[in-house]
Amino acid sequence: MHIPKIPALHTDKYQLTMMYAHWKNGSHRDRKAFDLYFRTLPFGNGYTVFAGLERAVDYLENLHFSDEEIHYLSQQPENYEPEFLEMLREFRFTGDIYGMREGTIVFPNEPLLRLEGSAMEIQFVETALLNFIGYQTLIATKAARIRTVARENFLMEFGTRRAQESDAALWGTRAAYLAGFHSTSNVRAGQLFGIPTSGTHSHSWVQDFDSELEAFRTFAHAFPNDCILLVDTYDTLKSGIPHAIQVGKELREQGYELKGVRLDSGDLAFLSKAARQMLDEAGFKQTKIVASSDLDEYTIQSLKNQGAEIDAWGIGTKLITTYDQPALGAVYKLVAREKDGEWQPRIKISSNPEKVTTPGLKKVVRLIDRQTEKARGDLIMEEGHSIDEEQPLTLFHPVHTYRKKEVDQFRVVELLRPIFKDGKRVYDLPSVEEIRNYHSEQRELFWEEHTRLLNPEEYHVDLSGSLWDKKQALLQSIYRRIKLENRPG
Amino acid sequence: MHIPKIPALHTDKYQLTMMYAHWKNGSHRDRKAFDLYFRTLPFGNGYTVFAGLERAVDYLENLHFSDEEIHYLSQQPENYEPEFLEMLREFRFTGDIYGMREGTIVFPNEPLLRLEGSAMEIQFVETALLNFIGYQTLIATKAARIRTVARENFLMEFGTRRAQESDAALWGTRAAYLAGFHSTSNVRAGQLFGIPTSGTHSHSWVQDFDSELEAFRTFAHAFPNDCILLVDTYDTLKSGIPHAIQVGKELREQGYELKGVRLDSGDLAFLSKAARQMLDEAGFKQTKIVASSDLDEYTIQSLKNQGAEIDAWGIGTKLITTYDQPALGAVYKLVAREKDGEWQPRIKISSNPEKVTTPGLKKVVRLIDRQTEKARGDLIMEEGHSIDEEQPLTLFHPVHTYRKKEVDQFRVVELLRPIFKDGKRVYDLPSVEEIRNYHSEQRELFWEEHTRLLNPEEYHVDLSGSLWDKKQALLQSIYRRIKLENRPG
Repeated sequence: MHIPKIPALHTDKYQLTMMYAHWKNGSHRDRKAFDLYFRTLPFGNGYTVFAGLERAVDYLENLHFSDEEIHYLSQQPENYEPEFLEMLREFRFTGDIYGMREGTIVFPNEPLLRLEGSAMEIQFVETALLNFIGYQTLIATKAARIRTVARENFLMEFGTRRAQESDAALWGTRAAYLAGFHSTSNVRAGQLFGIPTSGTHSHSWVQDFDSELEAFRTFAHAFPNDCILLVDTYDTLKSGIPHAIQVGKELREQGYELKGVRLDSGDLAFLSKAARQMLDEAGFKQTKIVASSDLDEYTIQSLKNQGAEIDAWGIGTKLITTYDQPALGAVYKLVAREKDGEWQPRIKISSNPEKVTTPGLKKVVRLIDRQTEKARGDLIMEEGHSIDEEQPLTLFHPVHTYRKKEVDQFRVVELLRPIFKDGKRVYDLPSVEEIRNYHSEQRELFWEEHTRLLNPEEYHVDLSGSLWDKKQALLQSIYRRIKLENRPG
Repeated sequence: MHIPKIPALHTDKYQLTMMYAHWKNGSHRDRKAFDLYFRTLPFGNGYTVFAGLERAVDYLENLHFSDEEIHYLSQQPENYEPEFLEMLREFRFTGDIYGMREGTIVFPNEPLLRLEGSAMEIQFVETALLNFIGYQTLIATKAARIRTVARENFLMEFGTRRAQESDAALWGTRAAYLAGFHSTSNVRAGQLFGIPTSGTHSHSWVQDFDSELEAFRTFAHAFPNDCILLVDTYDTLKSGIPHAIQVGKELREQGYELKGVRLDSGDLAFLSKAARQMLDEAGFKQTKIVASSDLDEYTIQSLKNQGAEIDAWGIGTKLITTYDQPALGAVYKLVAREKDGEWQPRIKISSNPEKVTTPGLKKVVRLIDRQTEKARGDLIMEEGHSIDEEQPLTLFHPVHTYRKKEVDQFRVVELLRPIFKDGKRVYDLPSVEEIRNYHSEQRELFWEEHTRLLNPEEYHVDLSGSLWDKKQALLQSIYRRIKLENRPG
């Protein structure tokens, strides 16, 4: 794979600043643990699709400072000490990581990654990990929503020109594919990930010829087997479709079938129905109708409600930029530090209870009903603790604790897997195709009430009782300490 | 500069499809001209800041298909003929380009780039150029809006973790800087473009110590000269500011001054005023107050209206993703083709008059009032035509033609410059600093009525009379042709 390695300086300045301050303080090798997670579901959706792990792994496996990077740092007004810069030359990621599998359906406050390592390495990787995982998770989630409304239709990712620069086009379409899209217009994603590619011709192709018919014929000559004609350059029903039918007849005489027509403007419900009828009456029942034009899950739903006869959808801007919410807002929080060989839980307080962090090394388990094979709820619990599958379990909401639910007859699936051990990858990266299949299985785990587009039912993600107690105790101790510390005024 | 070269396959499949269809048709070497422009101003702004040219130039200068890319294409179901793939091996950009300087204030429908070259090369580069220029222009425009409300304050781009992948972080912060931001948290942008970098410490730094005071002291020890303390981890006014003042006193004893405090949550208007008063009363009048927390031009304006005492602003998500409009929607349209050695204008029709293209090879001139040195209007006109600066000129709106304006006493500035000639770059790329200075001059050209945030006065961008006439004539001829061609039904 020919993906440029990510430079170490793809980071926020403050990561270096803190690394240096730790080094000056002699605390840079102290061990810390961080969780990467998000707090709020995007798009009003009921779940999120975790993606971006492979990119994060590639970053961590190759993380090092180049000579040019160190030279640049040595020239900065911070006047980093030479010994610090020498240490950076040897800097590699040597920590442990537990992470979700890409394609997993995940929920707010679940650690998607849990990282343990030296203060300087664990803090340093924050920016890049949030950047990679935030973006792909967002796109995969949006793509999953579109997949839900498109049902059996074919979905093509068409956003490269509108993406926020080159990487977004590439990694965005990967995320869309693993969440259920069928193809991409991005040829590089085809090359690097084996995603099938789609693409026909533009309006300029048609404009460039003296007539639409000539433009269609010329295109059909090049791709007799795979000919999709864009029919809206002049007038879809008066010019585009009749010319497409004419070229379809000519193709048929040569032993080929017209594969499709594409609509890219106008009222897609009306035009697709009229086009379908014209194609059917002319004997082109197999010719598919492809639509594009600023589509998203809402327009697709609305067009379907009106009986649009569309077989394949090309989705551009609204998916690749997640136009209605272009950032996930993932966070990366210290949850423990090692002191005298023991992990000490750490907490971040906030006047907003949703923003208080959950301390300590944690794992996430999913409880699957043994009869229905559907997920009943997820539980965030202390690492090292386990659940007895033979006993009923009471789940309760971590903020609104009066909300309780009892589950039994379940089996337990651990969601976090070892990804790195002492800086060595211990996880075999699946292919994009395998991730896509796994995601498809994940969808089957959830009742439709959690996956509908609007006002989905909240899925239970609760803290274990023991973890909840520890969190409350730590919270109280912090508030007591602040009160003691604060001077009047 | 260590920026990975952009692979040829960073494109839409249909560019290859059309290239192949042209090749099969023998028309791949015919010359075409395309314009790259946008139709609608983003964010309700009165203007747009052109950016992304350097990235586009880097792409075009290095454009070629690698062996791996050609191998990939040879395996595709399209069964491209071997001779075509051989031709791709030699493929380079050999065309001519005229473009705006980066940092130019530009308006809808003005060609930002005009490209002339063979059918296959000119069509092929569409996707990448739209991707690069659309994104940077969008970010530069958003940054210019923020610059307008921030006035003399210091602006820091803080978005890397929220950017839509790695390239967006890098190129987005470049665009922000050229439009008037003062620094970035993205260290790579510091290294590659010489942009000053900013960054202090995170909440996790504070959480990691047994007390906030110890956290602040340790940080100040590492950066006594450049110490900005994040004061909202526990309680801004009861804990953060008093501890910052204490550390400020300790720094002063060592001969240093506390540079700043940073607020990252809560009511920034109230907290900044109270913090300012506490700092002033303690003798820290020089200590700056830095704010961050989901800021954009609207929140900054609102905080300033409430008298917030903030000296520097860190802007993340809302800028780097242009949260309120994450895509510009730039377009790339065929405007002429060469036939028998002559350029023939081409037009794209639409039932929406704003979407009808303006045919032919065009240039853009800006009319500057000789007395006020302010821009009076821009004129899109035929290449080769010129304007007599000594004669008054009547401008009229290209869609609402009754809207007219007479200008005289002006000088003419041509906005499009030669960038490539026969595939060779003929333009010296300015540094980011030079672009930033040029943009700053550009701002001076425009009255405030065009640059205010809300409901700006529309700036005149008109077609020359002769160009307007030609467009109308071509439009009529197309509609006549379609009518003749269309068969009944």
